[in-house]
Amino acid sequence: TDSFSDRPSAVQEMHVYEINELDRGSPAYLPLSQKPINSLGDLVPFSNKLYHGNLKKRAGITAGICVLIKHVPEKKGDRYEAIFSFYFGDYGHISVQGEYLTYQDTYLAVTGGSGVFTGVYGKVKLQQLVFPFKLFYTFYLQGIGELPAELLGEPVPPNPDVEPSPAAKAAEPHACIPNYHD
Amino acid sequence: TDSFSDRPSAVQEMHVYEINELDRGSPAYLPLSQKPINSLGDLVPFSNKLYHGNLKKRAGITAGICVLIKHVPEKKGDRYEAIFSFYFGDYGHISVQGEYLTYQDTYLAVTGGSGVFTGVYGKVKLQQLVFPFKLFYTFYLQGIGELPAELLGEPVPPNPDVEPSPAAKAAEPHACIPNYHD
Amino acid sequence: TDSFSDRPSAVQEMHVYEINELDRGSPAYLPLSQKPINSLGDLVPFSNKLYHGNLKKRAGITAGICVLIKHVPEKKGDRYEAIFSFYFGDYGHISVQGEYLTYQDTYLAVTGGSGVFTGVYGKVKLQQLVFPFKLFYTFYLQGIGELPAELLGEPVPPNPDVEPSPAAKAAEPHACIPNYHD
Repeated sequence: TDSFSDRPSAVQEMHVYEINELDRGSPAYLPLSQKPINSLGDLVPFSNKLYHGNLKKRAGITAGICVLIKHVPEKKGDRYEAIFSFYFGDYGHISVQGEYLTYQDTYLAVTGGSGVFTGVYGKVKLQQLVFPFKLFYTFYLQGIGELPAELLGEPVPPNPDVEPSPAAKAAEPHACIPNYHD
Repeated sequence: TDSFSDRPSAVQEMHVYEINELDRGSPAYLPLSQKPINSLGDLVPFSNKLYHGNLKKRAGITAGICVLIKHVPEKKGDRYEAIFSFYFGDYGHISVQGEYLTYQDTYLAVTGGSGVFTGVYGKVKLQQLVFPFKLFYTFYLQGIGELPAELLGEPVPPNPDVEPSPAAKAAEPHACIPNYHD
Repeated sequence: TDSFSDRPSAVQEMHVYEINELDRGSPAYLPLSQKPINSLGDLVPFSNKLYHGNLKKRAGITAGICVLIKHVPEKKGDRYEAIFSFYFGDYGHISVQGEYLTYQDTYLAVTGGSGVFTGVYGKVKLQQLVFPFKLFYTFYLQGIGELPAELLGEPVPPNPDVEPSPAAKAAEPHACIPNYHD
């Protein structure tokens, strides 16, 4: 029925890597709590590079802010509330919100999107590979039409040693999605 | 049809209390406007405890940030833009955004969720009982399957004197939802 | 079917102007990066006035925060991640998130809403007319019932010289939506 085509509930998986190559001044850790250890009151705006899960294409950037919620000494890590977006050039963007723990994988909510992601809902799994430089995300996307083939496909299995292809890292035209965000 | 079971539009009500027990360093009032009264520019990260509406179970925490929008002298209060999440242990989380007025009840938007709340939409009514320590929320949730019984049920009618049960306050295992957020 | 009436996927367009009349202390530019040019780490809470697209009625306010992501020297402008809401008095509110570029139109995600906007999804086009004082938005709203006539109708075509009607600017009762946010 039209209802299905307008707002499909089928789940589409999409995989991306977020990599901090230390060339964007990110993250900007703002120690506004003025306490000696990470504490509620600290804020962390950030923006990193995004690569396709196959690591062969530069996809865009992330952009947003993490709100430090609490230091978790027994895990030697921190709990953040993360509010950010994933930008995919001409394809549009996905906004998400949820918990980011520096010591454990989490799921965040997909709150909306634009472009081919207009009307999207669902969730995203965040897996940290190398804190805080390398993360792997698995999106479970609903409410949208079939995604472009360029965004789909099998990912490189996540592990701490993965690296984008040299062409993707150099953002060579054939190794970037159209008008990728930078 | 499948469409209904995949994304039901029936409204489910869920009730929770948010209580600031002053043991989390919350809120962190950041007077970044550098003005003598609360003003645009001030930010308020926060995280408080969540209890089931029946006050018999510790449910988790809230986590997020309030953006001071304006001081409202005639109400002796403030308008905030609130961006935060409710965490419910193994059940997942709900993210919300909207207005928080220190002097009046409001409705916020439910923007997404994870776990049993994946794909959720709807709204939540915020009722302040004791500023800024005790709040009562009524969620009107759509787009998800039937909620677990442990999250449903009649709430204690909201009033300024409500307190969680001693077992819930002490987070005794039988008085917590599974792997409640802390 | 009920499914359609409960959560219609038809797109409704709604137009509003956001105007900074310099009477709200907005924006509050917080140079927390402590760098000489706009940089990641800077935050910009803001709240401006909203007018109906026909400029004959005061509709309410915007409220939220922009996170400076990067300065874009070749465009002599900046990239922000914008997280904010549009408030429409008794009609409720719409929350949005996405990119705000000071030099180019963008689309943001509609992440949720309250009142007549409860359950809304879709996107919004942001057009800057006079940086940073005058913006025009075209909402593409789905998931909700037919909007009130007072919110619909043809807009004044966007251009840098548009001004709200004197009655709307003065917030005369006949030129405001009911209980407009201020």
